[in-house]
Amino acid sequence: MTVRQKVGTFIDRRAVQNFILGVILFNAVILGMETSPVIMQAAGPLIIVLDTICLSIFVIEIAAKLFARGPIAFFRSGWNIFDFVIVAISLIPSGQGLSVLRALRILRLLRVLSVTPSLRRVVEGLMAALPGMGSVFLLMGIIFYIASVMATKLFGATFPDWFGTLGLSAYSLFQIMTLESWSMGIVRPVMEVYPQAWMFFVPFILVTTFAVVNLVVGLIVNSMQDAHHQEDAAKTDTYRDEVLRRLERIEAAMTDRKVG
Amino acid sequence: MTVRQKVGTFIDRRAVQNFILGVILFNAVILGMETSPVIMQAAGPLIIVLDTICLSIFVIEIAAKLFARGPIAFFRSGWNIFDFVIVAISLIPSGQGLSVLRALRILRLLRVLSVTPSLRRVVEGLMAALPGMGSVFLLMGIIFYIASVMATKLFGATFPDWFGTLGLSAYSLFQIMTLESWSMGIVRPVMEVYPQAWMFFVPFILVTTFAVVNLVVGLIVNSMQDAHHQEDAAKTDTYRDEVLRRLERIEAAMTDRKVG
Amino acid sequence: MTVRQKVGTFIDRRAVQNFILGVILFNAVILGMETSPVIMQAAGPLIIVLDTICLSIFVIEIAAKLFARGPIAFFRSGWNIFDFVIVAISLIPSGQGLSVLRALRILRLLRVLSVTPSLRRVVEGLMAALPGMGSVFLLMGIIFYIASVMATKLFGATFPDWFGTLGLSAYSLFQIMTLESWSMGIVRPVMEVYPQAWMFFVPFILVTTFAVVNLVVGLIVNSMQDAHHQEDAAKTDTYRDEVLRRLERIEAAMTDRKVG
Amino acid sequence: MTVRQKVGTFIDRRAVQNFILGVILFNAVILGMETSPVIMQAAGPLIIVLDTICLSIFVIEIAAKLFARGPIAFFRSGWNIFDFVIVAISLIPSGQGLSVLRALRILRLLRVLSVTPSLRRVVEGLMAALPGMGSVFLLMGIIFYIASVMATKLFGATFPDWFGTLGLSAYSLFQIMTLESWSMGIVRPVMEVYPQAWMFFVPFILVTTFAVVNLVVGLIVNSMQDAHHQEDAAKTDTYRDEVLRRLERIEAAMTDRKVG
Repeated sequence: MTVRQKVGTFIDRRAVQNFILGVILFNAVILGMETSPVIMQAAGPLIIVLDTICLSIFVIEIAAKLFARGPIAFFRSGWNIFDFVIVAISLIPSGQGLSVLRALRILRLLRVLSVTPSLRRVVEGLMAALPGMGSVFLLMGIIFYIASVMATKLFGATFPDWFGTLGLSAYSLFQIMTLESWSMGIVRPVMEVYPQAWMFFVPFILVTTFAVVNLVVGLIVNSMQDAHHQEDAAKTDTYRDEVLRRLERIEAAMTDRKVG
Repeated sequence: MTVRQKVGTFIDRRAVQNFILGVILFNAVILGMETSPVIMQAAGPLIIVLDTICLSIFVIEIAAKLFARGPIAFFRSGWNIFDFVIVAISLIPSGQGLSVLRALRILRLLRVLSVTPSLRRVVEGLMAALPGMGSVFLLMGIIFYIASVMATKLFGATFPDWFGTLGLSAYSLFQIMTLESWSMGIVRPVMEVYPQAWMFFVPFILVTTFAVVNLVVGLIVNSMQDAHHQEDAAKTDTYRDEVLRRLERIEAAMTDRKVG
Repeated sequence: MTVRQKVGTFIDRRAVQNFILGVILFNAVILGMETSPVIMQAAGPLIIVLDTICLSIFVIEIAAKLFARGPIAFFRSGWNIFDFVIVAISLIPSGQGLSVLRALRILRLLRVLSVTPSLRRVVEGLMAALPGMGSVFLLMGIIFYIASVMATKLFGATFPDWFGTLGLSAYSLFQIMTLESWSMGIVRPVMEVYPQAWMFFVPFILVTTFAVVNLVVGLIVNSMQDAHHQEDAAKTDTYRDEVLRRLERIEAAMTDRKVG
Repeated sequence: MTVRQKVGTFIDRRAVQNFILGVILFNAVILGMETSPVIMQAAGPLIIVLDTICLSIFVIEIAAKLFARGPIAFFRSGWNIFDFVIVAISLIPSGQGLSVLRALRILRLLRVLSVTPSLRRVVEGLMAALPGMGSVFLLMGIIFYIASVMATKLFGATFPDWFGTLGLSAYSLFQIMTLESWSMGIVRPVMEVYPQAWMFFVPFILVTTFAVVNLVVGLIVNSMQDAHHQEDAAKTDTYRDEVLRRLERIEAAMTDRKVG
């Protein structure tokens, strides 16, 4: 066994995987503690050291995996890329002003998804539903672009905070689609200036809501069919094959005898 | 081949269709840029020229189609009428004050739906679900009319902004149906004057929500049945026919022999 | 044919039913016009006369039906009781102060439901779904009563407008269940006084939302089963009976021959 | 029959169970009356006495059950533990400051669930759906923890009321997930300071909404399968067994004859 293979089998061991899972959870608690000024004042340096140790373990694990599988096999798996990116983010030096990068470190907890098979399957199940909804997503993208351009042209000058640019319009329309304060917060004030504004917003709500409902309906139908197939189909197929085989044999026997 | 037929085959060519799709998308970007004062100041005339070119291409395409198919066959297709109206809107001269017409020009992006077969099918699928929900829509229309008349009579005098006319009442009731600020924004203020107002609004919410839920349930059941049919039915029918044919043959063979 | 039977067949005639439907719709328009002060000033007396004529027609129709069927058969049908109550409401003299009774007159439009068979079936379908949800409704009633008593005891003294009495608490909890302004409007202000209040409200939201979701799930499952039965079951049953009958005959023929 | 058995059969009698149900409902009314200062002033001592009598009956019932079944069998049933805890809460002396404990007394009404078989089954049905959703709940827990840590680090310093600690962030994110005032109330104010904040909140809404939708879809699919099984499966299985048995007999008869 080469060193590569030894490293590979070592990393795939159940005990090692569980150890990594433990480190991920421990690290999540540490990063949670970092948000508390009281804890940071009492034990700040310790927490930073523990966080660095956790990060080092992740780096070593990923490096070992990369070495054991080789870069080509390694990066073929989406989950490995996922792990790699998450750990890489933590290694970018977060100078002042880049507090966002430090906040992103908690994303390491997402590694639980790649390490725990049952959660991995749930995420893969959720992902699997997305491509089937591609056309409806595209449709919603078109609707949002059209509505944003129209809202910007119609109301942008009078309500620059809500519809001043394409981006602001898209955000406001997203808010309206979620029905949050759409009337009291946005449309009634707009209608004070443009009394016909409801002719734009009410159809927008009806169309986007209808599209969202259709996304959910599509999800339900897909899930039902998957469940239906996995379970009943096999049993039914076995039964049907059995019936046809027996009928064939009976017929054969009869012709046989007839001929005989 | 007549000129008509030549034009018809030319327009239906894949390359021409893709070119039109490209023009639609390019035009959408152009119309998006028009919303930005910065870009308009830098390159306003160019953008207006490009927009005019795009529009000309659409007009030529529609005119060619009309010529190739003849007006009767052309206007028989819903999608052709759709394209025609969208382009026609852009041709109406938009004098000052008619900024709405200029905003409607972005509707041209909707032509993506008629040009892309997969999106066309999605839209047709969504449309196909509507007629089955006709009775529930009618029912909701009746409920809205009744509730609007009642709300106008009961609260119109005291809250003219919300329930002053039938139209204002219908709008406010639509807002209440979407549950947006229904209590804090509308019903609690109304209850300060008419403490029993909840006896009108709470049943209205329950009834309309129940009707909307039933619309969604209807959609789900329809989609499930369509999916169920397309897939299982054919296989099951083949199997059943096979079984019955074989049984018949066996029976026939037996009677045959019996007689013999 | 007695007078009774003559009246009965006359009323059930298609033309008479359509005439009544026309009067209902015309009356709905009239009652809608009554909400407009401008129209009332221009043609108030005419509108009131027309309304009275419509009402008279309804009274005559109901009286004729009552006479033709006899009171026992008449009141056995839920739809007849429905019509009777709606028309009776309009006959109560609405002195001043009883503007509510005048507002209720628009409920006459609901008679469209009893007169139009297709809408009648929709309403009957919606109603048919209710009994199956009885236990969940009862459960929600219990949850609401418990939560109202607790909210009144815990927060009633400090927030009398929201939780002062059982009724006010129930209304506020209904608002919270619909998620309208639950946090910014109610729970955040309450938490300023009782910081642990979220331990009451968040579970309440989770439990009631879960119950509502289960109501909807129940509706979907019921509708699916109904649709499934009406359609597939008959065909499947015919097929199965046919297979079993043929198999039986084959077996009988064989034993027959064997014996023979 | 020992005393134990006698007590056991006495308690399980229908009449006794109905009496207990009556006491529960009566007690619920009493506890509801306690919320009204007017009633308490008029008949406070009476209500407190009646409440104590009800509580005594519950204590005696539970004690009798405990005696009849023995502690081991008694505490094996989840419903018995449920009853025991609910009654035990009422027995804790509620000194001043512990008004929460007094408010919890209305939880006794929940005993209706354990006493009424049909409600018991509804609750058991709702509970049965929970374990299947375990992974999605775990996933949502992870998402909430990550989002809370990030929100606290990013916005905690500027918006201490909303994102000051992990707990406050989790509460605010729950509010955002329910879409209550998420934009006008929280995200727009945050965006005034951090214009890119939507890049955190909009994906959070999309991801959590998608997860919630998947929970509901899972519930629907499970319910459908349960309903499907209970009903069709038995009938189908009987039919299939019958067909196979008959086919086997025919084949056997034929081979038999052939041999013969």
